[in-house]
Amino acid sequence: MTTHSGHTEAIRASRVIGTSVYNTAGEKIGTIEDVMLDKLSNGIMYAVIGFGGFLGIGEKYHAIPWSVLDYEKSEGGYVVPFTREQLEGAPAYTIDELTGNDGKKARDSSYEYYNVPPYWY
Amino acid sequence: MTTHSGHTEAIRASRVIGTSVYNTAGEKIGTIEDVMLDKLSNGIMYAVIGFGGFLGIGEKYHAIPWSVLDYEKSEGGYVVPFTREQLEGAPAYTIDELTGNDGKKARDSSYEYYNVPPYWY
Repeated sequence: MTTHSGHTEAIRASRVIGTSVYNTAGEKIGTIEDVMLDKLSNGIMYAVIGFGGFLGIGEKYHAIPWSVLDYEKSEGGYVVPFTREQLEGAPAYTIDELTGNDGKKARDSSYEYYNVPPYWY
Repeated sequence: MTTHSGHTEAIRASRVIGTSVYNTAGEKIGTIEDVMLDKLSNGIMYAVIGFGGFLGIGEKYHAIPWSVLDYEKSEGGYVVPFTREQLEGAPAYTIDELTGNDGKKARDSSYEYYNVPPYWY
């Protein structure tokens, strides 16, 4: 992930949440709703992407590997090399499902879907 | 870090932020104001602890290694094996200072102060 400000490698979770996500064509494909953290390691499991509503029961979210998010200052948001159709076709979970199974079901299926090498081995 | 609910290893950053931090004597010693994430790795750098105000310019915060935070359901917050005096005596930084130097100055001094082995080697 490239830097948010261009000057620092560190970013506060509260600044990540609510940031828009664009594809490489500049189309907004979603919003970062939250970041899933692993309590038993120092690992960031994934970003939780939605379509910009409030976190709600029954609503569906997608897990995106942290490492694919590139902050693009000119866009004012993160850019990922996916289409909106790819995101919409990705495994989707309610918030409860995301945190269930230690978060690993959503994490593992996301890394597989986007063909991103796992960080946890 | 033990689990927030007792059932899952995954926790959303938005649920961590705002949680109280207690010492082992049950005294509240601070509040988790934010979580610092490393953009160039999958690493959680540290939790940002303050004394419960709003994040403000000039206000000072402390970095605490993620691994020392244990969620205690009976307390409704995190428990750390430190006294309030230890926290108050820890290196303190403004929010800008926390994110400066890639966040590493605050991170490194915190791990050294609390004698926690670094996760990043």
